[in-house]
Amino acid sequence: MNQLGIVKRNIVRADKAAVERLSKLGVATIHEAMGRVGLMKPYMRPVYSGAKICGTAVTILLQPGDNWMMHVAAEQLQAGDVAVAACTTDNEDGFFGDLLATSFQARGAKGLIIDGGVRDVADLEKMGFPVFSKAINSKGTIKATLGSVNIQIVCAGAIVNPGDVVIADVVVVPAAIAAQVADAAEHRESFEGEKRAKLAAGVLGLDMYKMREPLEKAGLKYID
Amino acid sequence: MNQLGIVKRNIVRADKAAVERLSKLGVATIHEAMGRVGLMKPYMRPVYSGAKICGTAVTILLQPGDNWMMHVAAEQLQAGDVAVAACTTDNEDGFFGDLLATSFQARGAKGLIIDGGVRDVADLEKMGFPVFSKAINSKGTIKATLGSVNIQIVCAGAIVNPGDVVIADVVVVPAAIAAQVADAAEHRESFEGEKRAKLAAGVLGLDMYKMREPLEKAGLKYID
Amino acid sequence: MNQLGIVKRNIVRADKAAVERLSKLGVATIHEAMGRVGLMKPYMRPVYSGAKICGTAVTILLQPGDNWMMHVAAEQLQAGDVAVAACTTDNEDGFFGDLLATSFQARGAKGLIIDGGVRDVADLEKMGFPVFSKAINSKGTIKATLGSVNIQIVCAGAIVNPGDVVIADVVVVPAAIAAQVADAAEHRESFEGEKRAKLAAGVLGLDMYKMREPLEKAGLKYID
Amino acid sequence: MNQLGIVKRNIVRADKAAVERLSKLGVATIHEAMGRVGLMKPYMRPVYSGAKICGTAVTILLQPGDNWMMHVAAEQLQAGDVAVAACTTDNEDGFFGDLLATSFQARGAKGLIIDGGVRDVADLEKMGFPVFSKAINSKGTIKATLGSVNIQIVCAGAIVNPGDVVIADVVVVPAAIAAQVADAAEHRESFEGEKRAKLAAGVLGLDMYKMREPLEKAGLKYID
Amino acid sequence: MNQLGIVKRNIVRADKAAVERLSKLGVATIHEAMGRVGLMKPYMRPVYSGAKICGTAVTILLQPGDNWMMHVAAEQLQAGDVAVAACTTDNEDGFFGDLLATSFQARGAKGLIIDGGVRDVADLEKMGFPVFSKAINSKGTIKATLGSVNIQIVCAGAIVNPGDVVIADVVVVPAAIAAQVADAAEHRESFEGEKRAKLAAGVLGLDMYKMREPLEKAGLKYID
Amino acid sequence: MNQLGIVKRNIVRADKAAVERLSKLGVATIHEAMGRVGLMKPYMRPVYSGAKICGTAVTILLQPGDNWMMHVAAEQLQAGDVAVAACTTDNEDGFFGDLLATSFQARGAKGLIIDGGVRDVADLEKMGFPVFSKAINSKGTIKATLGSVNIQIVCAGAIVNPGDVVIADVVVVPAAIAAQVADAAEHRESFEGEKRAKLAAGVLGLDMYKMREPLEKAGLKYID
Repeated sequence: MNQLGIVKRNIVRADKAAVERLSKLGVATIHEAMGRVGLMKPYMRPVYSGAKICGTAVTILLQPGDNWMMHVAAEQLQAGDVAVAACTTDNEDGFFGDLLATSFQARGAKGLIIDGGVRDVADLEKMGFPVFSKAINSKGTIKATLGSVNIQIVCAGAIVNPGDVVIADVVVVPAAIAAQVADAAEHRESFEGEKRAKLAAGVLGLDMYKMREPLEKAGLKYID
Repeated sequence: MNQLGIVKRNIVRADKAAVERLSKLGVATIHEAMGRVGLMKPYMRPVYSGAKICGTAVTILLQPGDNWMMHVAAEQLQAGDVAVAACTTDNEDGFFGDLLATSFQARGAKGLIIDGGVRDVADLEKMGFPVFSKAINSKGTIKATLGSVNIQIVCAGAIVNPGDVVIADVVVVPAAIAAQVADAAEHRESFEGEKRAKLAAGVLGLDMYKMREPLEKAGLKYID
Repeated sequence: MNQLGIVKRNIVRADKAAVERLSKLGVATIHEAMGRVGLMKPYMRPVYSGAKICGTAVTILLQPGDNWMMHVAAEQLQAGDVAVAACTTDNEDGFFGDLLATSFQARGAKGLIIDGGVRDVADLEKMGFPVFSKAINSKGTIKATLGSVNIQIVCAGAIVNPGDVVIADVVVVPAAIAAQVADAAEHRESFEGEKRAKLAAGVLGLDMYKMREPLEKAGLKYID
Repeated sequence: MNQLGIVKRNIVRADKAAVERLSKLGVATIHEAMGRVGLMKPYMRPVYSGAKICGTAVTILLQPGDNWMMHVAAEQLQAGDVAVAACTTDNEDGFFGDLLATSFQARGAKGLIIDGGVRDVADLEKMGFPVFSKAINSKGTIKATLGSVNIQIVCAGAIVNPGDVVIADVVVVPAAIAAQVADAAEHRESFEGEKRAKLAAGVLGLDMYKMREPLEKAGLKYID
Repeated sequence: MNQLGIVKRNIVRADKAAVERLSKLGVATIHEAMGRVGLMKPYMRPVYSGAKICGTAVTILLQPGDNWMMHVAAEQLQAGDVAVAACTTDNEDGFFGDLLATSFQARGAKGLIIDGGVRDVADLEKMGFPVFSKAINSKGTIKATLGSVNIQIVCAGAIVNPGDVVIADVVVVPAAIAAQVADAAEHRESFEGEKRAKLAAGVLGLDMYKMREPLEKAGLKYID
Repeated sequence: MNQLGIVKRNIVRADKAAVERLSKLGVATIHEAMGRVGLMKPYMRPVYSGAKICGTAVTILLQPGDNWMMHVAAEQLQAGDVAVAACTTDNEDGFFGDLLATSFQARGAKGLIIDGGVRDVADLEKMGFPVFSKAINSKGTIKATLGSVNIQIVCAGAIVNPGDVVIADVVVVPAAIAAQVADAAEHRESFEGEKRAKLAAGVLGLDMYKMREPLEKAGLKYID
């Protein structure tokens, strides 16, 4: 029954074509296309301006003040993967810095999403290794206690299974429905241009979305 | 007695000349000129670096997870206005994104100040539509419950009445005293250059402000 | 027994050569070299992107809503010093702005580290006066109550004595061991290049750090 | 235009009979009766278990770390009043303790609601002087800077005007509509007993409130 | 792929005997017996002193400011169940009060665990209906948007599946391993008495757990 | 230079008579008597209602998620001591429970003050072992990494040296000045009764403290 001390080697990654399609869509659009679920909490922020991530999750469960599992996870990373790390408790230590980033990048990883802290942020920017985290913190960690790699985790309030697509700032798309979500999101996106043009031309959302009647029914009153 | 479900159409906006003058002054100076009141809480931050806003408030009271009133507010916005949105409870959902920004911009609005979350931040920056908010969040909202437009609201701890001048990062100047505050702030500003020159030349504030005597009276002791 | 109302004029600053050496090292490396102690809490962030600070501390203990001691501290600042300010209680008022920055810069100060708020951030960036703070806040302060200058303070969870080296984002190195810490940090740094090259070439940390055996002993299980 | 340094002596207090009626109603009921507005933020908590407050507001605007206005306010308190205190900035210092409580109680005040800290909590409980606050904090304050008494304030996110009814945990009822709100709240309350009895007997809200049809229309699906 | 708008009627509840056994064990012991996983975040607190809950989960996913699904969930509750509610976003509104508690209690529910706010706390205590929540808040909610009942949720950082055992303050035991966890926890508990007796007699943990040698190996130094 | 891995055995405890005197005084009074310094942050709260602590500090520096040093500290505790624990980073794990409390109590310790989490709170109350903490958390810890015992620590923002007097809710009195602080605090206390009597009789603080003139000088205006 123990969830700790486990590394799952063979995971089913989301379809590469679906990942590629999702990488071109906005996070808000994907989230809407999934029925408004799957988002991490908004405290997850890029460690440098302009950072973007899309890929398949290799999940990591860390212990507080301990980044041993980061090294174990490196071996499980493949080209196109994103490391997604949670901790067994709230902890903002700097679990990850430029050396691990070098290793992850050499494995083909496309970034890190971590419900904790990272350090060496200026180096990460120089390397072009994007990270979304809860904190920036130079506090170092030890390597003493087992967590797990590629088990189901909760990261910043969202359930992440290994192989799921993660797109930062950060939505999680279950691997099994990645293509279906890409379809729905592209469909939504296809109408956005037309809507934007109308709104830019001065058409009101009140009219475009036919809201005047439901607003009146709900009791909205205009006064002068 | 109900404050919800109301849209006030005719509001008294602050004098345009006063708004123009205030837009050239620093927020700290304006706040000092008002006697150190009128600031929103410091968690209100620009969603992109360098964002600036100054204009007359159209106020919006939102319900949690619901941005219906944003669409109602769009119709009330005039050139030079700033949308100022609060919520009936703490909620960091993404109430506002690029489509609404397109609509607000088409109406001539100069920006949004919201005690909540916004999304599509990269698009907002590209469009040049400045926003100050509590959070950045891709979480979408519904359109189901009435709030109000152009009633008195509390936004990030500050009272905002429709027509007030709001200058981000964020001070609220009541419409009725906008010119008077501009006078006082310009007066303060007129002395800043001289003070800055003296301080840059190495004169100490201790001497420039004649603080040595009051400090001694208060009991300050120098030890070696 | 009173810690308030005191200004210590003669303080022992860390050796200049050691400060110079520490300024070239990463904060994470210095922190590791000290045995993983001495860091301020991660909420301390630069007020503009790219800000860096290294110098010897002149410490300031402020009262809430009161920046009188900033002016007293200005006189104690020498070339190469960093002002390090704490408050007797949690308070995010804007204790510091462009005028004080002008004065501090004229004294040769290299920056400010403050467990509180600062204002006029755009001006600070233009001036090139780096600040690390807890908050950005236009809220002004008064000059009415005594704090102290150059006493031992707790700033963002770290003990700072006058003369200590502070390197932002932010580690505190006691003056007496500055050279010793620089030695240890440079020693650590000298191995980093080799490690980085190996990891970039695809060598795993698991092998480079010989972790496979201890992981197995700790009970790590690989499953498929 | 300055809001600071003012004491308003003659304020219009809500009708005593309405206050009496409101004191017997639940806060949630009153808040519903007002259309779901008027609540302070939920971080406002009683400093001792079982504390209850209902009365007419004497408002106090404090400066950070300074409780001078508490003494000024004491003189304005009449039997049946509740002191309601906000601060010009977030500050959790201990603005109020057993001596001030003794004075307020001698004036006939029924309690204190403060968006800040209080101290001597064990004594307050012994005295039976109820307080709702943001924090419990032994940190003392000074008496050096002017705030105001009986101006409009924002306390824990709610607008409070002098004379309004405040009922903790904490709803604010504008003085002018106190009787009208009491009517509406009593009306709501009158149905609660019947509803409670039905629910206790096992009737489901789904049936009692006729929710099954709207739920089905909204698309709710039952699966096995 | 939509997770919203679903009610699962038939769920597999954990074995009643296992639930009964777990109800007699401490939360810390159960958590240790599961390998130190399964805890909700520590901000989940009882709304009245002494509240205790143990039962099988009926899960509820709420929308912000909306408690419609509470009524839907009531019908799914059976004797011995505990309602466990999360929200699609952070929201501390008062989703639950004395009327819903009356209904839940009539259904045989043993309590509520909610990552949000509740109201009418004094009534809940009188009724003996225990609740663990993130906040106490009189703020009411509407009934307009679909969430779900008996889907997998994340509540205060912990994954909860319908039928799991929840023991407050709050650990989640997956239904499938409830008996196994009860075994392990009882086994741990059986040694506690002996340990406690030794420690009470003055034996040091250093000796009882044989820590002196590993501490020395780790480098611990005693100085005088 | 390393502060970790150290246990100091011989510490200079504050004078027992002074500790005894301080135990009878209020925390606010002691804090005022020291010149308004020495308080821990107000998030430190008793884990059960009515808990009180006064004694000499044995300090403990913990690592996140690790309570090994608690066992090392037990051996250093003497009758009349209070364990005061900080962590090298923010961490709310449950470092302490009923077994450690049994051991500490057997050593004569009078309580625990910890900038972290504790568990088994119901047991602690039954045993009468008072604890002030940042959090209540059943999350367990490991025993793998060295911290230190009886070094200078920062606990909840306050510097604590071994041997200092700590009085909860929580002020730290340096050992060397304990008697002097007791003198000053008793002196303050001796006037409180008289003041309280006057205030209870309806004398205003405005008159008792002669504030009317300084208020007028500061510019206070009474309006009707």
